[in-house]
Amino acid sequence: MISFSSKDKFDSRNLTMLCDFYELTMANGYFKNGMKDTIAVFDLFFRRIPDGGGFALFCGLEQIIQYLENLKFSDEDISYLKKRKLFDPQFLDYLRTFRFECDVWSMTEGTPIFPGEPIVRVRGPIIQAQFIETMLLVTINHQSLIATKTNRIVRAAKGRSVFEFGSRRAQGYDAANYGARAAYIAGAASSANTWSDVHFGIPASGTMAHSWVQSFDTELDSFIAYAKTYPNDCTLLVDTYNTLKTGVPNAIKVAHEVLEPMGHRLQGVRLDSGDVAYLSKKVRKMLDDAGLDDCKIVISNSLDEFLIRSILSQGAQVNAFGVGENLITARSEAVFGGVYKLVATYDLDGNVIPKIKISDNFEKITTPSFKEVWRLFEKDDHHPLADVITLEHEVIPDDGPYEIFDPLDTTKRKVVTHYIAKKMLVPIYEKGTLVYQSPNLHQIRKECHKNVSELWEEMLRLDNPHQYYVDLSQELWDLKTNMLKELRTK
Amino acid sequence: MISFSSKDKFDSRNLTMLCDFYELTMANGYFKNGMKDTIAVFDLFFRRIPDGGGFALFCGLEQIIQYLENLKFSDEDISYLKKRKLFDPQFLDYLRTFRFECDVWSMTEGTPIFPGEPIVRVRGPIIQAQFIETMLLVTINHQSLIATKTNRIVRAAKGRSVFEFGSRRAQGYDAANYGARAAYIAGAASSANTWSDVHFGIPASGTMAHSWVQSFDTELDSFIAYAKTYPNDCTLLVDTYNTLKTGVPNAIKVAHEVLEPMGHRLQGVRLDSGDVAYLSKKVRKMLDDAGLDDCKIVISNSLDEFLIRSILSQGAQVNAFGVGENLITARSEAVFGGVYKLVATYDLDGNVIPKIKISDNFEKITTPSFKEVWRLFEKDDHHPLADVITLEHEVIPDDGPYEIFDPLDTTKRKVVTHYIAKKMLVPIYEKGTLVYQSPNLHQIRKECHKNVSELWEEMLRLDNPHQYYVDLSQELWDLKTNMLKELRTK
Repeated sequence: MISFSSKDKFDSRNLTMLCDFYELTMANGYFKNGMKDTIAVFDLFFRRIPDGGGFALFCGLEQIIQYLENLKFSDEDISYLKKRKLFDPQFLDYLRTFRFECDVWSMTEGTPIFPGEPIVRVRGPIIQAQFIETMLLVTINHQSLIATKTNRIVRAAKGRSVFEFGSRRAQGYDAANYGARAAYIAGAASSANTWSDVHFGIPASGTMAHSWVQSFDTELDSFIAYAKTYPNDCTLLVDTYNTLKTGVPNAIKVAHEVLEPMGHRLQGVRLDSGDVAYLSKKVRKMLDDAGLDDCKIVISNSLDEFLIRSILSQGAQVNAFGVGENLITARSEAVFGGVYKLVATYDLDGNVIPKIKISDNFEKITTPSFKEVWRLFEKDDHHPLADVITLEHEVIPDDGPYEIFDPLDTTKRKVVTHYIAKKMLVPIYEKGTLVYQSPNLHQIRKECHKNVSELWEEMLRLDNPHQYYVDLSQELWDLKTNMLKELRTK
Repeated sequence: MISFSSKDKFDSRNLTMLCDFYELTMANGYFKNGMKDTIAVFDLFFRRIPDGGGFALFCGLEQIIQYLENLKFSDEDISYLKKRKLFDPQFLDYLRTFRFECDVWSMTEGTPIFPGEPIVRVRGPIIQAQFIETMLLVTINHQSLIATKTNRIVRAAKGRSVFEFGSRRAQGYDAANYGARAAYIAGAASSANTWSDVHFGIPASGTMAHSWVQSFDTELDSFIAYAKTYPNDCTLLVDTYNTLKTGVPNAIKVAHEVLEPMGHRLQGVRLDSGDVAYLSKKVRKMLDDAGLDDCKIVISNSLDEFLIRSILSQGAQVNAFGVGENLITARSEAVFGGVYKLVATYDLDGNVIPKIKISDNFEKITTPSFKEVWRLFEKDDHHPLADVITLEHEVIPDDGPYEIFDPLDTTKRKVVTHYIAKKMLVPIYEKGTLVYQSPNLHQIRKECHKNVSELWEEMLRLDNPHQYYVDLSQELWDLKTNMLKELRTK
């Protein structure tokens, strides 16, 4: 009954072996040590927002579903494992007939997420819940990284379109393809990557490279040929030789002498080098003076959110930005540090046994047990107030009064009222059965836009944004503190 | 006759549409403007070595070959293009029966490469040579980036093993898989990514995560279970609770009481947190005092070349490093800036028409025409002296005397003698037919090691390395200068 919203399927590739080898040695170890059916709970969370931003954006759930729907060990995989001479034959038989049986909960795509809170939660046989670690992490880390970065760039562009131009500098093919997906969700208007249009329906756009202009005898010839080929949608690249002396004058000539007689307007010009802030103003004036005030100016050339902000603050006349390598690699901070940690197991009677990983660094200590994440939204304007992590059985009632406190400074406390409390993790799998239908990509994009627009303006700043709190319930905080005390006094 | 050295084939995925949309609009434009058969030459080159290093490493050729061998437009691709209502029906017919007909030359994988020199050269019908731009760039940019970064890390480790641990933080699945490949070529000893072993034969390694230790009642229980399961190859993660107070003492206990009675030795311990420089010295002493001087110490935890250098300079006792996110994303500089530029077309009589792209920034001006890259090696010890780019017909004779000069300061001149001159670009395709057989991955890795070891030691420094010169022949320099003069006086 449930069908995918995207045509891109994982079944054409077998990525089962994209796992850390230790997931297999541990799995075999659990199997041989009678722990095959031990139920474990893992939390996927991250510790720091890239670029010092006010929030990150969650992305990649749909690909995780595709991975899990197609998860199987092929004969080739099994025969590889056999050759390693480390694995029990009965364990290999188990893999041969592997069936995914875990429960999975997740945030939905396009949701603002914050450090320390579970964004995906997996519960099931420890072998299985452990095995999927690498694929869950690489998927979420990559797409959330690019979505988070893209949204910064989109915010800097202040309503102007951002075109994703980065495929050629992406870190591999998937980085180009799924990076385009994440960028689109986070607000990019289009991608240069045609694959992303074929497979995801992301509008693919692009007109000409410098090589087009160079391959003709003159720049004017190249513009005329392009205009005649694409009179409906003609954007000309004007910086191959000299933007102001030849590029724009030739573009204007073509607008008047080729396009207008055919009943068309020049759609745009693109500047890809030089002092684009300065040039854009000159170009705007030249176009306006020629009666081409509807002709758009597109700028590209190693842009990022800071350059865009700087260019706009200089009064540049730009309608759209093409952003490449700095977006598609999140160059300024190219790692999204999601981790996947064991937080509980269950005993044979079904009781939760909370687990903790300690560290000398308080922020690296994991938060134990099976937990829920709640977001409290202001009742009137739906601004999120704070996130609260609770134990499973706790309920945060709407409207409160509910006391929240900073887990790093428990004397900082605040009573909140007049809010709606929403559980953020939604069921995706129940005992291995998919129970969630991904919205289509355009819906996800819309939802993401809505979510971001509900955030406090102070959280949207590129530098030193307002810090949003992720608090623990008193009961969870007590559990964590007591476990730490016990371990430290052992 | 020619077979691939790797089992990984592109034919399970259709990546034809991983192209910038402008490659298609230009292709259709060339087609409609009677330029379908115009022969063009494109150079792929890069402008700057990441991290201010002394050289980069070329990687990715094998995947380019796999891409080109499988390049075809599927019915789905064609019907997508049809829907866009931009393309001529005859052009779509041409794509339907597309057959790759270009000549391709390339450096071989594992070769040190330098800014400004062609590392791949493509000649053929302009539609085709232009169309493959994005896939060539994304492949070379990604793998060369990771190889270059990895080799820095390997050099910092000074002969100790570097294990690639980064899959979970890679920018997508291909970044994990092909990143592991590039890392192995550049000197990583193994990868945690099992896929890279199944498909490329890269030794996959890994033992346990903290979750293994946490999932047992006690750390000691978890070590005993692991040792009994893998007595042959037992490396224990000792930092889950307290490295010096419990982790190492428990590991020693297991070595003596579980492994030795079975006739095995404890292979290693891994430290993944804390002050690893300090801890490693303490751990070494504890192991030695327990008669475990053959037990190896593996360190991981956000390492890169600079941290490794610092750790070793503090006298850390480390046998191997596990390096993750900073390697697999080349985090310190996550973009390899390869570009693909038109440098010539041919007229109907087969004469080369050199093409140039000018810019206000001298270093961004392209070097025109069909060119060769020569590397001059010292005759005795095979150190490379300099690279020289010449026009096609020029020959650099062995031994010289040959005058080289700095193209940015033509008064800096030097006469070289007693060298072997080697043409660096080798034929890969002749009119669309593959004429090159990739060495297998282990040979490439060996070749890479040899190439790097022949470089001057001063080029291997991590900071401020000696700058290696890429010069132009006098004739090529004159051509470029004259073309610039002519364009600038127009």
